[in-house]
Amino acid sequence: MTTNLSRRRFLATGALTAAGTVLPAAADAKTTKKKTTKRRVKRADVVVVGGGLAGLTAARELVKAGRSVVVLEARDRVGGRTLNHDLGGGKIVEVGGQFVGPTQDRILNLADEVGVARFPTYATGENVYVADGRATRYSGDIPPDPQALADLALLVTRLDSMAAQVPVDAPWTAPSAAEWDRQTAESWIRANSVNAERTLGLVNLFFDSAYGGKASDVSFLYVLAQIAGFGDAQNPGTLERGIGTKGGAQDSRLVGGSQLISINAAKALGRRVVLNAPVRRIEQHGSSVTVVSDRGSWKAKRVIVATPPQLAAEIEWAPLLPVQHDALRRRMPLGTLMKCHAIYDEPFWRKDGLSGMALKIDGVAPEMFDNSPPDGSPGILMGFHGGHEWRLYAGRPEERRKAVLACFADAFGPKALEPRDYFEQDWTTERWSRGGPVSQLSPGTVTEFLPVLTQPFGTVHWAGTETAGYWNGYMDGAVSSGERAAKEILGEL
Amino acid sequence: MTTNLSRRRFLATGALTAAGTVLPAAADAKTTKKKTTKRRVKRADVVVVGGGLAGLTAARELVKAGRSVVVLEARDRVGGRTLNHDLGGGKIVEVGGQFVGPTQDRILNLADEVGVARFPTYATGENVYVADGRATRYSGDIPPDPQALADLALLVTRLDSMAAQVPVDAPWTAPSAAEWDRQTAESWIRANSVNAERTLGLVNLFFDSAYGGKASDVSFLYVLAQIAGFGDAQNPGTLERGIGTKGGAQDSRLVGGSQLISINAAKALGRRVVLNAPVRRIEQHGSSVTVVSDRGSWKAKRVIVATPPQLAAEIEWAPLLPVQHDALRRRMPLGTLMKCHAIYDEPFWRKDGLSGMALKIDGVAPEMFDNSPPDGSPGILMGFHGGHEWRLYAGRPEERRKAVLACFADAFGPKALEPRDYFEQDWTTERWSRGGPVSQLSPGTVTEFLPVLTQPFGTVHWAGTETAGYWNGYMDGAVSSGERAAKEILGEL
Repeated sequence: MTTNLSRRRFLATGALTAAGTVLPAAADAKTTKKKTTKRRVKRADVVVVGGGLAGLTAARELVKAGRSVVVLEARDRVGGRTLNHDLGGGKIVEVGGQFVGPTQDRILNLADEVGVARFPTYATGENVYVADGRATRYSGDIPPDPQALADLALLVTRLDSMAAQVPVDAPWTAPSAAEWDRQTAESWIRANSVNAERTLGLVNLFFDSAYGGKASDVSFLYVLAQIAGFGDAQNPGTLERGIGTKGGAQDSRLVGGSQLISINAAKALGRRVVLNAPVRRIEQHGSSVTVVSDRGSWKAKRVIVATPPQLAAEIEWAPLLPVQHDALRRRMPLGTLMKCHAIYDEPFWRKDGLSGMALKIDGVAPEMFDNSPPDGSPGILMGFHGGHEWRLYAGRPEERRKAVLACFADAFGPKALEPRDYFEQDWTTERWSRGGPVSQLSPGTVTEFLPVLTQPFGTVHWAGTETAGYWNGYMDGAVSSGERAAKEILGEL
Repeated sequence: MTTNLSRRRFLATGALTAAGTVLPAAADAKTTKKKTTKRRVKRADVVVVGGGLAGLTAARELVKAGRSVVVLEARDRVGGRTLNHDLGGGKIVEVGGQFVGPTQDRILNLADEVGVARFPTYATGENVYVADGRATRYSGDIPPDPQALADLALLVTRLDSMAAQVPVDAPWTAPSAAEWDRQTAESWIRANSVNAERTLGLVNLFFDSAYGGKASDVSFLYVLAQIAGFGDAQNPGTLERGIGTKGGAQDSRLVGGSQLISINAAKALGRRVVLNAPVRRIEQHGSSVTVVSDRGSWKAKRVIVATPPQLAAEIEWAPLLPVQHDALRRRMPLGTLMKCHAIYDEPFWRKDGLSGMALKIDGVAPEMFDNSPPDGSPGILMGFHGGHEWRLYAGRPEERRKAVLACFADAFGPKALEPRDYFEQDWTTERWSRGGPVSQLSPGTVTEFLPVLTQPFGTVHWAGTETAGYWNGYMDGAVSSGERAAKEILGEL
């Protein structure tokens, strides 16, 4: 292959080889049509860049209001950082974002609207905490570590009370914003713990899945802003709601998988969704804007960019993205996170009175869940694998598999070592995500750069979970960001 | 314009509108030739991506060793983060990297080789320190701040002694690497100062020009690694050498401007340097590699990528950049830095016994220099404008101009308010740099991500000042990185 193909062809090929569900008719029909009208610039009121939950929600709202819309999605699938993995026999498991819970009304409403039901995360029985070579059973959300318990109890109270001082939509205006943003979360925790090493070990269990990183990677203010967002206008954010299963962020799951929300939303939008259409260039001239993709160009009145923030900075902008927008987005890398799944004939841990939820301090998959389908068959263990451990095993899949299964066995016994299947999803290898679950904001970024994040740039508006106040980094934040962006535009057009 | 132009045309136009010196004959000849051989894939032993000091040095070394080389430069000029501004009458001033000093043998040798002479930075007379509304004259490199003097003296000693424990080529192996990398430089300085606010104010004067940011933006380990690099194999790095003028990093300047080194090096390379050739895609197949640019494609045995690290992650890679490389480069945004110049008929401050070097705590241009040509005519004041102050004035050029001139006046008197000319260079607006002077590494990055930085990826090797040990972020580091990359390849081919 290679040398005589045009660049255009190269790029399309790259996109087509990406993993994921193939979307139906609408987009394929578009392909045929496109070939005959290759050079014609199409028109729409609004072009939405990115067919994840944020972009699709924005498109729904605009269509409801009677506007013409096109959604340009770079991959051969919709859903962004949600992704179903087909287990056969009509069953799936989610290798991306998957949990929903109370106060996440926007994703819950959207799921209802597109006909996706939910079921409670399996939480019957005891959880397991693995530390110092011992597995201990416990109930509730905080593991019973005698070395860290005093620190943790105080920490949770203090974090909630500080988070209450952080405005979710403008964390840089918090009274102590400068003080909290100039240090890492680790620095603050160290300075405020008696047994800092152990306490940090425990805290990092949650940072692993929440950020794909460690407490040393992120601004303390950013962490407080996220805690403030674990709620809604009526219910102030609390750490407990963020890390909890029953009544918390991991309360429920979606029948048919979280990606089904996007798939159904895209079906309803029909031909308005164009796959394999990475956007390469956005060109504004006065009150109109031209969006150039691998599947053609569209001229519109407004654009919503609903991609991960850093990828937005890689589009060719004419005129250039304002320096504040560019500098901010360049400082918003996503975390390094994988989800690792082991499939068993049955969820054997349930018979042992275990919920399948486990934490292992310094574990290869430090946070584990029972991720079986609603009927409990097959049995599925899922482990988050991120941050330091991800780096340790990067490029060594065989060793990683062994280590993850050993980690499952530490929590649930030797049966965990013999799955009938095992697979992983590494979000850093996704060309159009480049990590997960959410951007990591390092010290200095919230106060110095973040304020411009949602400020429109001429005809361009911004969506994506990173732009949300409540449930920033979650599916709910993606949906609310899409609603906000659509509302901004409807207020103008 | 717009709608019917191909993407290729768009991109070429974008590159052509960038500012900078137009390069001569060789490249123009290439344009004509290219048109007739548009689709033919050209061949070279090595393709170098980026025509800054790193890339040009690598190309020189490879050509000396008899290899065929092409240098693909995205802009319409060479020199990367060095750039001459034409003052007319055969005079220039540098709006990018400009200073050289002892232990920077590699850039000094290269300057000699391409016939660029140097002259001492003007340092006759006293410096000025502006704080609390008062301008105080002083000599030496450390301003005489009674509130911070005790802290600073101890700080300098301690930083040097800690830096001595950091291996320049592998800072992540320092005995205390984890401890130093999990906090911001500000956190460490606060914990180790009596009068922390004032001490930080002073420290940030230097961070402004060194990183285009603040002590809160960067990992403390990264700062120590940079200090360790202010030297060479015989002379351990010291903070004093980094911040000093006489005998330090600001010791000397280059006759004709620092960019002249690149311009002369490119002239010697002739047609091997292709301008307006942004590289869009790098495709490896076994032992060969194809590089696709806006000026055609080249097939080669090896590639050296010598761009700012984050821009390398934006190239379309096939196969994809290994996740560790991608995740690292996404965490290496450049600082936000401008240089502001005011031109006067003569350097009036010299008559007042002033060197033109000044520091103003919390100043809009906190670090100022006499940047006049060797003969002292015209008189030029230059101020660095970065970090917090840059953000404050972003998008407000008129206010910034006034504030910068007022800052000059605070140090040198009211004559500074009436320049005959004033201009700025904002490195964040440079499409192919996206900031300056160097990547800012936030906490966690050095220990968790940096180790892969110079590891080859198949046929691809890496250069650029960020990959250097000694004088990382300086012109000298760029040159040594190009030498290293060339040497790696010559050892293989």
